[in-house]
Amino acid sequence: MRQVTIVGTGLIGASFGLALRKAGFDGAIVGVSSPAALADAMARGAIDRGAPLAEAVAAADLVFLSQAIGRILDTIRHLDPLVKPGALVTDAGSTKCEIVDLARQVLTRCQFLGGHPMAGKESRGAVAADAELFRGHPWALAPDEPGELETPAARDFRRWLDRIGARIAVLDCDAHDRLVARTSHVPQLASTALAAVLEAQWQGAVPPLYGPGLKDMTRLALSSYDLWRDIVATNTDHIARALGDYIQELEHLRENLRTRQLQEEFTKGEKFARRLREPS
Amino acid sequence: MRQVTIVGTGLIGASFGLALRKAGFDGAIVGVSSPAALADAMARGAIDRGAPLAEAVAAADLVFLSQAIGRILDTIRHLDPLVKPGALVTDAGSTKCEIVDLARQVLTRCQFLGGHPMAGKESRGAVAADAELFRGHPWALAPDEPGELETPAARDFRRWLDRIGARIAVLDCDAHDRLVARTSHVPQLASTALAAVLEAQWQGAVPPLYGPGLKDMTRLALSSYDLWRDIVATNTDHIARALGDYIQELEHLRENLRTRQLQEEFTKGEKFARRLREPS
Repeated sequence: MRQVTIVGTGLIGASFGLALRKAGFDGAIVGVSSPAALADAMARGAIDRGAPLAEAVAAADLVFLSQAIGRILDTIRHLDPLVKPGALVTDAGSTKCEIVDLARQVLTRCQFLGGHPMAGKESRGAVAADAELFRGHPWALAPDEPGELETPAARDFRRWLDRIGARIAVLDCDAHDRLVARTSHVPQLASTALAAVLEAQWQGAVPPLYGPGLKDMTRLALSSYDLWRDIVATNTDHIARALGDYIQELEHLRENLRTRQLQEEFTKGEKFARRLREPS
Repeated sequence: MRQVTIVGTGLIGASFGLALRKAGFDGAIVGVSSPAALADAMARGAIDRGAPLAEAVAAADLVFLSQAIGRILDTIRHLDPLVKPGALVTDAGSTKCEIVDLARQVLTRCQFLGGHPMAGKESRGAVAADAELFRGHPWALAPDEPGELETPAARDFRRWLDRIGARIAVLDCDAHDRLVARTSHVPQLASTALAAVLEAQWQGAVPPLYGPGLKDMTRLALSSYDLWRDIVATNTDHIARALGDYIQELEHLRENLRTRQLQEEFTKGEKFARRLREPS
């Protein structure tokens, strides 16, 4: 690929640009974003220049949509007449089914391959971008059928993902959305709920005593609603079911505070937490 | 005070010994523990020597009970005939009412002042001890009445807590137990429940995709059930109520995944999480 266009040069988009450069990509990297976001991304060396969408995608071999989910859907609706025939369009949306479904309907002149890099940090924007952001972290790809991974453009894209250190995980969009409901979306809501209950009680104050793990448990609650509104809106059913299972487990603990069942749940939880920390 | 006896030379007890030494305490520090734990604490320089309970407390001006809660209760039951008259006995138990109630009933020859240093780490034992463990963290004191803080022995103890950098927080034992149910015990159970649900689903495996915050959210799940059994058993009512409020908040989120209420809860949670991180 000779030109990459990054639509949305925030943390993820700008990190992708930096990562490509560090991995040796020497083609053009064009950004599409607000003037302020483009200026930040250029200052960081994540893109070469900014351009309006139509101009930016006309010659792009790879179009990377790294906006919030609602904006990704909007961009996909406008993209088909603008892209170079045969280009690969991919995205970084945290849910996949709505995006992949829409792309299947409206994109006819290019290939779409849904993606989701599972990396991030609390800080946002190109100023927080990091060429190493994706290293060692999963990057989900959600093809409609396996052959989509084997087109020349998709092979080339996967080679670049390897070079930037991402660990490719292939699964279909429903499996993706069902899984991240449990491993990403419920943890977010668990943190938000914990912090919201404490806020309701301690409005404007910090409790005089708290355990050493309360900061861990409320870190995700710092996340922006702007991003989460779209995630929750496009994965509501899976999240509702997964949240139901979490609530059921908490009820189980509550009913067994004085029985041996509590030990079993602690043992299960400790096993999972340890395994998550083992080198893979 | 000239002699301090630390009963239970694990992470908290050994860290207290190291902290006293670093702060300039030049009296004797005697440990009561298993032979292995005493050897570790001596190797770290946290105690001068080990001794059986009766011998260790006979000449102690301060007796610090840093065992698991059940063991603290056991020790208190045996302590009264053994202590030096007028000694101050304090503890590090994570719940206060059962301990303070028992001490009030059985200790007649010494003063008891319930305490709870809100510090810790994942690692256990004297090998993980740290003279700075308490610096900047709250150390709860739970007197039955304010005058208990003003005896000569209690004033001396409080001066040493200042010197090791602990931030003393005074509250009665019921207020303490009610508060930590919400700021320490429910966060623990929230983490355990999250990890236990994932373990039930992923027995023996790590999910191929998970969000960057899942490690934060499952760190507390690494905690030992041995410690938590006693905490939960001695604070069951407050924990059950606080857990009920947390479950109710999660239900509220679940019912409002597609309404504006979700934004309000994210905003509340973000406010609390930010305030917790502001320098105090």
